[in-house]
Amino acid sequence: MEFSLIDRIRQRTAQSRDDVRLGIGDDAALLAVPKGQELAVAIDTMVEGVHFPRDTAAVDIGWKALAVNLSDLAAMGATPAWALLALTLPNADEAFIDGFADGFAQLARMYRLALVGGDTTRGALTISVAVYGFVPPGKALMRAGAQVGDVVMVTGTLGDAAGGLQLLQQGHRSDALSSYLIERLNRPTPRVAAGLALRERAHACIDISDGLLADLGHICSASKVGAEIEAAWLPRSSALLGLFDDASSRDVALSGGDDYELCFTVPPQHVASVQADLAKLGCGATRIGCIVERKGVKVRGANGQWLEQDRQGWDHFRA
Amino acid sequence: MEFSLIDRIRQRTAQSRDDVRLGIGDDAALLAVPKGQELAVAIDTMVEGVHFPRDTAAVDIGWKALAVNLSDLAAMGATPAWALLALTLPNADEAFIDGFADGFAQLARMYRLALVGGDTTRGALTISVAVYGFVPPGKALMRAGAQVGDVVMVTGTLGDAAGGLQLLQQGHRSDALSSYLIERLNRPTPRVAAGLALRERAHACIDISDGLLADLGHICSASKVGAEIEAAWLPRSSALLGLFDDASSRDVALSGGDDYELCFTVPPQHVASVQADLAKLGCGATRIGCIVERKGVKVRGANGQWLEQDRQGWDHFRA
Repeated sequence: MEFSLIDRIRQRTAQSRDDVRLGIGDDAALLAVPKGQELAVAIDTMVEGVHFPRDTAAVDIGWKALAVNLSDLAAMGATPAWALLALTLPNADEAFIDGFADGFAQLARMYRLALVGGDTTRGALTISVAVYGFVPPGKALMRAGAQVGDVVMVTGTLGDAAGGLQLLQQGHRSDALSSYLIERLNRPTPRVAAGLALRERAHACIDISDGLLADLGHICSASKVGAEIEAAWLPRSSALLGLFDDASSRDVALSGGDDYELCFTVPPQHVASVQADLAKLGCGATRIGCIVERKGVKVRGANGQWLEQDRQGWDHFRA
Repeated sequence: MEFSLIDRIRQRTAQSRDDVRLGIGDDAALLAVPKGQELAVAIDTMVEGVHFPRDTAAVDIGWKALAVNLSDLAAMGATPAWALLALTLPNADEAFIDGFADGFAQLARMYRLALVGGDTTRGALTISVAVYGFVPPGKALMRAGAQVGDVVMVTGTLGDAAGGLQLLQQGHRSDALSSYLIERLNRPTPRVAAGLALRERAHACIDISDGLLADLGHICSASKVGAEIEAAWLPRSSALLGLFDDASSRDVALSGGDDYELCFTVPPQHVASVQADLAKLGCGATRIGCIVERKGVKVRGANGQWLEQDRQGWDHFRA
């Protein structure tokens, strides 16, 4: 392990937790999982130019590197506890490190998450974060478990991050609506509290990193079911609707990645209570369709016809 | 998580463990730490051209990526259990993936280690592995804990990997002695069993990744002590002695990295039993010096004079 850089980050996070028996500074960290809890672990890598644009601010990279991993824990209904950070950098740029550390720490503090170890190496900018959370045995949310008749729901709004990326690619934008979408791309909010609230009610859950249709497709394959989505019900932000036309905003809501909202299925009797509880948490939950027996994910347009994907996006079924 | 590539690797490792409640295929893995055990966790990154030469075989890269991490667990006296793999590749080269998976799996099988998750991304070849092991509370070996009067010992032989790297840099070598040293560079053996055997006897322990003097220096700083090493006692392989002169082999034994042997300190009454037990494990243990009050790591030459480091290596003290 390399301590100097990792320790700069740890100092900014500065979470003291009784369950960290030995933190950064030895060959390994020593951690105590609380009695009666299982450990949920995930690792995700971000590469410059692939997972974030080359000119992304260091503070946003630090935030997002942790956020996308916390989103995996959220999708499992796990309570975040610890993280490891493997940071590969072209050079030991102090301003970058400090900015990265600030962004990482801002999010870590919100969850009392402790950075317990890491490694810094020289190379192309690549960031791997491993996160650890707790969940009682048998209570984790999984991709498998969706049942025919379940209602498909999502937290927050969809397509914002993909919309923000399109705006960035078109050049600098600083109006309020554009800034909102770009912030959604650079600073995703992991839906940790929503994941915990869903633990006793959702049959299946995933976080939306690759786009709604791809990720709902993962739930359907794992659960051996299909899904039907109503395009008109997709929750879209006023910023997205203000800057994109209806078809474009619908397309990014269906296929755009990087929103890190949760997509989950619940039996109909829990829909109202889930909506009420997630509204209190600030993100809300919207019903977008239902689970059906026939495999695959289908999307119904506002006029009641099925849509199909072509190169331009989603359009009326033309067969 | 990306499953296709990671799953190819998991299929080759194919360890079933009761403590893996949910493996690869969801947003996170679910793991159960056995009762009465703490979790030791470490993460290390390898970058092509920095941590291994550019033409290193995929099978060796797979082995080494896991080996350097298991070495961290060995240095803590922890029993390996699980790993996560974050693999960044310039392209989805199947031959590379298969070779990498073979090397990773060969070593994983030796320890019944289960690959429980991972991520594959596109970018410059960069491999981060996080490993997890178990250790009873209070029994872990740490860097702090060395006491004045302790004997400093190392497993195996030193300088082989650095010797192998020098040979590689000089061009292709295929004689038996060269092959031995290059194998030591490409396929380090983590001293897991030795670490477990040291648990009740060593006061401090570290694995030698940066070189004996640097890593023993970490033990000394953490323990607030110093060390005196006898150059003549440094264990050197017959391959190293056969291909390098005395001064060069001594220099790589003192300063060469990548050997992944353990350096540890034990009270004098345990030296004989440690030597006997580690001889049975195949790696052996050699006494190389002692822990003293005065800070810093000093090296005494065969003629009894202190050595000091200059650009060429270690030489007689010239002050």
